[in-house]
Amino acid sequence: MTEASIKEYLDAGQGGFVAEFLEFLRIPSISTAPERTADVRKAAEWTVDRMHKAGFGEARLLETGGHPVVYGASPHQAGKPTVLIYCHYDVQPPEPLELWETPPFEPRIDGGCVFARGASDTKGNVLVAILACEAWLKTQGALPVNVKLLFEGEEEVGSPSLATFIEQNRDLLACDLVISADGGVGTPAQPLISMSTRGLAGLQVRVQTAATDLHSGNGGLAPNALHALVVILASLRDETGRILVEGFYDDVLPLTPEMRTLIAGMPLDADAFLRQNAIKASFGEPDYSPVERSVARPTLELNGMWGGYQGTGTKTVIPREAYAKITCRLVARQRPETVMAQVKRHIEAVCPDYADVSVQLQDGAFPYLLPSDHPGVAVLQRVLTRLGAQPPAARMGGGTVPVMGMLKAALDVETVTIGGSQGDERLHAPNEFYRLANFRWAQEVMAVYLGELAVSGLAGTTAVSTP
Amino acid sequence: MTEASIKEYLDAGQGGFVAEFLEFLRIPSISTAPERTADVRKAAEWTVDRMHKAGFGEARLLETGGHPVVYGASPHQAGKPTVLIYCHYDVQPPEPLELWETPPFEPRIDGGCVFARGASDTKGNVLVAILACEAWLKTQGALPVNVKLLFEGEEEVGSPSLATFIEQNRDLLACDLVISADGGVGTPAQPLISMSTRGLAGLQVRVQTAATDLHSGNGGLAPNALHALVVILASLRDETGRILVEGFYDDVLPLTPEMRTLIAGMPLDADAFLRQNAIKASFGEPDYSPVERSVARPTLELNGMWGGYQGTGTKTVIPREAYAKITCRLVARQRPETVMAQVKRHIEAVCPDYADVSVQLQDGAFPYLLPSDHPGVAVLQRVLTRLGAQPPAARMGGGTVPVMGMLKAALDVETVTIGGSQGDERLHAPNEFYRLANFRWAQEVMAVYLGELAVSGLAGTTAVSTP
Repeated sequence: MTEASIKEYLDAGQGGFVAEFLEFLRIPSISTAPERTADVRKAAEWTVDRMHKAGFGEARLLETGGHPVVYGASPHQAGKPTVLIYCHYDVQPPEPLELWETPPFEPRIDGGCVFARGASDTKGNVLVAILACEAWLKTQGALPVNVKLLFEGEEEVGSPSLATFIEQNRDLLACDLVISADGGVGTPAQPLISMSTRGLAGLQVRVQTAATDLHSGNGGLAPNALHALVVILASLRDETGRILVEGFYDDVLPLTPEMRTLIAGMPLDADAFLRQNAIKASFGEPDYSPVERSVARPTLELNGMWGGYQGTGTKTVIPREAYAKITCRLVARQRPETVMAQVKRHIEAVCPDYADVSVQLQDGAFPYLLPSDHPGVAVLQRVLTRLGAQPPAARMGGGTVPVMGMLKAALDVETVTIGGSQGDERLHAPNEFYRLANFRWAQEVMAVYLGELAVSGLAGTTAVSTP
Repeated sequence: MTEASIKEYLDAGQGGFVAEFLEFLRIPSISTAPERTADVRKAAEWTVDRMHKAGFGEARLLETGGHPVVYGASPHQAGKPTVLIYCHYDVQPPEPLELWETPPFEPRIDGGCVFARGASDTKGNVLVAILACEAWLKTQGALPVNVKLLFEGEEEVGSPSLATFIEQNRDLLACDLVISADGGVGTPAQPLISMSTRGLAGLQVRVQTAATDLHSGNGGLAPNALHALVVILASLRDETGRILVEGFYDDVLPLTPEMRTLIAGMPLDADAFLRQNAIKASFGEPDYSPVERSVARPTLELNGMWGGYQGTGTKTVIPREAYAKITCRLVARQRPETVMAQVKRHIEAVCPDYADVSVQLQDGAFPYLLPSDHPGVAVLQRVLTRLGAQPPAARMGGGTVPVMGMLKAALDVETVTIGGSQGDERLHAPNEFYRLANFRWAQEVMAVYLGELAVSGLAGTTAVSTP
């Protein structure tokens, strides 16, 4: 049996795969750090080598304006669906270093987990993708579907080169389905299917009231930039948390009873989350549950705010300028440019007469909603039901995975997520870890999924694959 | 003639006095800097020596919990009024050093001005006081009134030891009138009489919503400390600038028609101030003129505000905590403790349920209003009319001189201001300077004022002087 021999191959090789994983983790491929550029490239080259070893005939670096993309493909087999597997090989900076129990780039195994920067986010999943393919190539001599691999090196800096890269390589990347390995399918005990992520619209606000800071003895005569900023920011949401920016909710898909049922069934315990983080109460639109608000409603959050004196004691200053950083999380079908323009217009309109305001547009990313009737979803449901202890639950994510919206926009393809990571593995934080049991399980889920796709096909998808 | 010989003495000695002034300025008596403690003491000792040289029999350091007080007195002459002259010998830190054209403690004379840290604020005025007395002592053999000198070394750090020092030395400091040399009487072309200063009430606010910062993918579920802070701060003033804290205006003396006339006559050009500082418009209670608001109405100003991410680009964080610094400027008869308690109560009442708030009380100082019918005012009007090109204008100050309220509370005495400083001399800023013509003129105004006090007496004052 194909599936049995794949399972056997993965079991037999796991010790060596873990050793290779540790080797991969030792490369500090921090994409934000200019002095690590050579290490980022080294991790890309390591990935190419590992793909060759897995049996990919084609595996290479593709240059971008920034860090390179790793690309590979299996020999094209006519009549079979083509799957593009996405992941990234770059990692977050490890700081603050003093909070790590062992150095971030000296991986340590403890209690069935690997502790290292990039373990969960997401070098483990790069290997999951390669090893799932390797299991087919080494045991069956070929992949069951056409596979293209796309590993980027700039995910942790907001993927600045990726949209252009995708636009310029539409033929190379053409596919019927995307599998994102940047995430997870839960655990064998509780499998999960990711159905949506939210988008993002970021802005920075600067308010200015004078050429210089002034002594507060001038208060009453001189206006204050901090007060102007407070007036602006207070106008953005009402006392229930509803966002008051004109048009903000126009493109938001209403929550259907089906989606509300799906969200209510998500294994996300809002009360436990609040307790864990010592939060007194959730806050937001009263017509929605806290979990609904966090996955299916847009937000407008202040991420930073500053101006004037921040030291100890009193400084009697009237600050001349004040700043705020804002990001909105978007849900289908909001568009980042539209929302940024709406928020900018609102801020400019409410700015007090005595102040000047400038609004700088920053990061934007589309929300993503996987159609629940997509054939790739049905296949994943079947696979997870077979390989897990219970049928998978659906998950809607509150965060953002920009590549999904980019690929949908450029190639008109949908994305399912298959990887071994879980949300509690200290992504972006000290002592990041990854569960080795999930590493192993995700390899099997991915391999079996590719096989099932070959059997079921992707009837109903509209994209056309090219060799 | 007494007055002529005093004038002659000051003219003849001025070259030497300026040289001594430069010597005094070379001592970096920065009271905020622990590593300058010895220099602060050195400046105090320099002052004591200079007082001895002027002819003060009694001149000495008095220890406090912090930097020492310099105290001196002339031999008591029964039946004459006693005047306490206040000033301070400590200076502000000079930073940012790179903005100084020449080093802050290497005084330079240019265009009739001395450029150095502490020149205008207020070592020049310490010498004005000593030299005015010296002119009497050296030409007449005695002072026309009883004089006590009190120079503190902690004014620039908020006078933390002074209130206790005054309380513990009520007999030593007992007097009929205080002259503060920490300020100015305008210029010969436009003499000024300071009639009031505002008080101060400072608070720091901390809002907390969670034990840790959270990823903004949790937005909608997790509350945001910055939004809680914005809600609180926006509630403090209405859209016209009126302060909404309950009871805030209860103790404010209404502006009388006489005071409005006085303020309208002040040589303070609000439009020029706005233009100079590139301010589009003044802002505040529409029933008062900008100048009225800045000298005779209380304020509530944000001096600092911060929380979350302040770096470049986007960080999708929900901040767990946020801070603001607030100071109120108070007018007669507001009390700092009362106002602090009112603002604290307001903030605690409006804090959203999902957040915790703590309010820390900081600096407080009483406002000061010199009664316009005080005999010391009439004497100063006469002196300035005689020594200036036109009769003096009254000035109400927007800032705070805490010592006036302290002395009024402890000794029940009023304070007139006589010094050579002007508001445009870059106090607390790089390239601070002091006009030597004013240095000379202030010495004469102070000396003549002491003589006039002896002639006119201070009938109507209630305080009793003791030897």
